Amino acid sequence: MERALEMVDELAADFVHLLRDGVRIPSVSNEIERHDDVCAMGAFVAQLARDRGADSVLVVDDLGKLENGNPIPPVVLAQWGSDPAKHTLCVYGHYDVMPAAVEDGWEHQADPFELVEKDMDGIGTVLFGRGSTDDKGPLLGWFCALQAMQAAGMALPVNLKLVAEGREEAGSEGMDKLVSTHPFFKENVDMFCISDNYWLGGFPCITYGLRGFCGMNVTVTGPERNLHSGIFGGLVVDPYLQVIQLLQSLTDAQGDIVIPSVLEDVQEVTDEERELYEAIHFDPESWRRESGLPHIKGDSKVDVLMRRWRFPSLTIHGIEASSPMNATIIASSVSARFSVRLVPDMDPAVTFEKIKAHLEQHFASLPGKNRLDVSMTYGARAFVSDWHHYNFASAHAAVKDVYHVEPEMTREGGSIPVSLVFQNTGRNVCLLPIGDFDGNAHGPNENISKKNFLQGIKLFVAYMHHLGKAQ
Amino acid sequence: MERALEMVDELAADFVHLLRDGVRIPSVSNEIERHDDVCAMGAFVAQLARDRGADSVLVVDDLGKLENGNPIPPVVLAQWGSDPAKHTLCVYGHYDVMPAAVEDGWEHQADPFELVEKDMDGIGTVLFGRGSTDDKGPLLGWFCALQAMQAAGMALPVNLKLVAEGREEAGSEGMDKLVSTHPFFKENVDMFCISDNYWLGGFPCITYGLRGFCGMNVTVTGPERNLHSGIFGGLVVDPYLQVIQLLQSLTDAQGDIVIPSVLEDVQEVTDEERELYEAIHFDPESWRRESGLPHIKGDSKVDVLMRRWRFPSLTIHGIEASSPMNATIIASSVSARFSVRLVPDMDPAVTFEKIKAHLEQHFASLPGKNRLDVSMTYGARAFVSDWHHYNFASAHAAVKDVYHVEPEMTREGGSIPVSLVFQNTGRNVCLLPIGDFDGNAHGPNENISKKNFLQGIKLFVAYMHHLGKAQ
Repeated sequence: MERALEMVDELAADFVHLLRDGVRIPSVSNEIERHDDVCAMGAFVAQLARDRGADSVLVVDDLGKLENGNPIPPVVLAQWGSDPAKHTLCVYGHYDVMPAAVEDGWEHQADPFELVEKDMDGIGTVLFGRGSTDDKGPLLGWFCALQAMQAAGMALPVNLKLVAEGREEAGSEGMDKLVSTHPFFKENVDMFCISDNYWLGGFPCITYGLRGFCGMNVTVTGPERNLHSGIFGGLVVDPYLQVIQLLQSLTDAQGDIVIPSVLEDVQEVTDEERELYEAIHFDPESWRRESGLPHIKGDSKVDVLMRRWRFPSLTIHGIEASSPMNATIIASSVSARFSVRLVPDMDPAVTFEKIKAHLEQHFASLPGKNRLDVSMTYGARAFVSDWHHYNFASAHAAVKDVYHVEPEMTREGGSIPVSLVFQNTGRNVCLLPIGDFDGNAHGPNENISKKNFLQGIKLFVAYMHHLGKAQ
Repeated sequence: MERALEMVDELAADFVHLLRDGVRIPSVSNEIERHDDVCAMGAFVAQLARDRGADSVLVVDDLGKLENGNPIPPVVLAQWGSDPAKHTLCVYGHYDVMPAAVEDGWEHQADPFELVEKDMDGIGTVLFGRGSTDDKGPLLGWFCALQAMQAAGMALPVNLKLVAEGREEAGSEGMDKLVSTHPFFKENVDMFCISDNYWLGGFPCITYGLRGFCGMNVTVTGPERNLHSGIFGGLVVDPYLQVIQLLQSLTDAQGDIVIPSVLEDVQEVTDEERELYEAIHFDPESWRRESGLPHIKGDSKVDVLMRRWRFPSLTIHGIEASSPMNATIIASSVSARFSVRLVPDMDPAVTFEKIKAHLEQHFASLPGKNRLDVSMTYGARAFVSDWHHYNFASAHAAVKDVYHVEPEMTREGGSIPVSLVFQNTGRNVCLLPIGDFDGNAHGPNENISKKNFLQGIKLFVAYMHHLGKAQ
C-alpha cells in the first residue's frame, strides 16, 4: 500500500488534469438545455471505468423520462473483480453539478467550468471550479485511487463496484427503483461508501448520520372569494391570521418545537453518543461568525452540535395567499409550507399525523367556521449507520494512516436521500468526506484544495486496503 | 320642483341614452393603453357641462405626470350660477372606471362597455355596463337633474359647482393639491356632496362616515444570507417565525386588536349614535350568505354594523421572504404587510407609533439577535361628517320626498380619500348614494337598476331644492 500512496503524489499532475477534464463538461442537471452535457459526462465516466480496466461497465439509460420530457441521465455501473474471498465495496458518486455563472461571484476564473489552480495564503494550491468538491472531485478520486494502485502494482484489496448518477442535484429520479431492483446492488455487495459531503471544520471526519425530513402544508380557507378589507375587516376571522396562530402554536419563543407527542419520538441520547460529540473539534463562536449568523442557539459545543444533528428543527418556508401581495384584501385562502428535520426514532408519517392532530385540535379551539387542510409534501426518515461496523473501522484506520489523527464522527443536519436507499438494501453505509467545510459547494468559488484532493485519493486507497483485511 | 321630478320620467329614455354614451367610452384609468379614452371621457364631461349651460367650464390638464409618464387626466371644473343670495353646492364624481373584460364573467353583454337594458324578475329593467353605478351613473345623473330642471323651467335653487376627475380608481393623483390650492374650491363653496358609494341593502341611505387606514410593514432580518434548513435549522431563530410571533401578538384568537394603547384612542359610542345604528335595516345572516362568508363576527345587528364601520380592524395582506417559495431554506429576511382600518379618534401616525412600540417591546422579549424594522406605508384618518348640518337635513328631506321613507344613516368600512380632502377645506361633506348594494361595482355585471338611476336623478333635484331653502 505504501507504494500506492507514493504514486498518488507522483501522479498528482495527471489527477488534477483528470479533474480539469471532468469539470470542463458543464453537466448541470437542473438546466434543461444542459441535458446533452449531462449525458456526455455520463459517457466520460463510463469510458474512464473502461480505461481503468473495469470487468464490466453498464450504462443504464432506460430509467424513464423526467418531467421535462428528457430521459433520465444514465447511471453508470462498473465493477472490478469478483473474487468470492474478498469483500465487495460499492462506492457512489454523482457526476452532475449545480448551475454556475461567473456573474454569481466567481472571483478566480472567467468560466466556472474551467478549473483554475491558485495559490492561497496558508492553504497552498486550491482548485477552483464547479464540481471540484461536489462531487466530481470525490467521484474521480476513486478512479485516481485505482490508477495509483495499478501503477504501484498493488492488487485490488476488495471487489469494487462503482455507481455514478447524473441527477443527484435535481431529485435523483430513478435511483430508488434502480437500487431496489437491479441485480448489481443485490448480488455481492457487502457495504457502501458515499463521498458526497464535507468535513465539519479543518479536521477529517467520518459521517454516520443524517437528519430526515417531513414537509407539510397547512391551508385555511374562509370566504368564497377575496374580500375588501375595509368592508369586511372586523367581520370575518382572517384566514391569514389563523394560519399565523396555527404556526405560532408549533414552537416556543426560541423557535423550538413544543408539541409533546412529537418530542416523545426523539431517541434519548446515550452516553456513548455524547462522548462522540465531546471529541469533536468545533468552535461554535467562530463557526457563527464565518456563517454570517447574528446569534446561535445552544449553550455549549455539544449542545450546538446536537441541535444541528441530533434534534428535530422546524422551519417555515413560505406563506401564499389567494390575494395579490400588495392589495388591501382579506385573502379567502392562505397556505403555509413548513418542514421538520427528523432524527431517530421519528417516522415522517407519524410526525405528520401528530402535527396534523395538534393543528386540528388547536384550530377547533379557534372561533369562526373556516376550513383547515393539512397535508404532507415529502418525507424521509433520518439516516443513522451502525458505526461499529468494520466498514467504519476501515475508514477509521484509513484516516489514521493518511492524516495521522483520530477522525471525528459526525452527522449532517441535512439529508442525502441515496444514503437511505442504500441502507434499505440491508448493507452498512459509511459517508467518507474528503472536501473541507469551506469548499462552497453549490455556491460561487466552489473549490477543493489540492492537498485535500490528493489526500482524499490516498484515503480511498487506504480505506480499501483496510477493508481487504477486515473480518 | 314637482314638474322637474315629472320631467325625469318623461326624459327617461334620453337619460339612459346619455348613460349609454358615457359607458361606451372605455375610460379605464389604470390601463396605460386606455389613456386616450380616459381623456376623451374628460372631454365628453366638459362638453356636457357646456351643453347644460354652465357659466364656466375649466378643464384642468396641467396637474403633472403619472408614474407611467402620461399626464394626469384632466379634472373638469364647471359652474352654474354665482348668486350671493344662494348657497353654493359642490358635487363630485369621477369619470374613470375599473378594467372590464367579458371573460371576467359578464353574462348579459358581449362588451362590458356597451350598456345593456335587461328585465330582471322582481327588479324591473336593469342597466348593465362598466361604470353604470361606479361612477358614471351618479356623475351623469347630476347633468340629468339639470336637464330635468331646465326642461321644467325650474330655477337652479343653488349655485352649483361640479368637479369630475378621471383618476379615482387609480390613486386620485393631483386631486389633493388641486382642492387645497385652486380658487374653485376656496371661493363660495358652502358644502360638498359625493355620490360614489352604495346603499347598505335595498334601502336609501345617507353616509356620514368612512374608516381610515394605517398600512404597515414589519421586517425581521437575521443571518447575512438565506440558509440551508438542514444545516442551520435548530441553530438560528428563524426570522419567519419571529414575524409570525409578532403578528400573532397583535390580535386575539378572534382576530380583534388587543393592544390597549391603540384601543384607548377609539371614540366612545354615544347613545345618539347607537340609535342611528338601531334604525338601520340590516339582516346580518342574509348579508353573510349573500357575501359568501362562512361566519360573521358580532352578536347582533348593531354589533355587526359597528364592527364594520365603528371599530378598527386589522388585516394581514401578505408575507414575503428573501427565500424562494418552494425551497427548504431559512429566509435571512422576512417582511409582513398589514393594515389597520381606523375610526375616530385614531390618528394614523399615532396608531403607527403605538403598534410600532408594541412590536418593538414584544420583539425585545424574544431571544436571538435578529433585527426588527417597522415602517408605515400609507395613512389616512377616518372621515366623519357633522350629520346635524343642513347639508344632511336637505339630503334627508330629499330622500323622504322621493322614496317616502326615512333614510338610513350609514358609514362605510372602507375609505374614499376625496371625502377627507374636501373636509379639510372646512366645509361639510355629505355622501349621497343612489346605487343599490348589489350593483357589483369593480366586478363583472356592474349595473344600476333603471329605477335607482331615475330616482337618483330625482333625489339630486329634490336635494338641491331643499338646500335652496335651508338656512
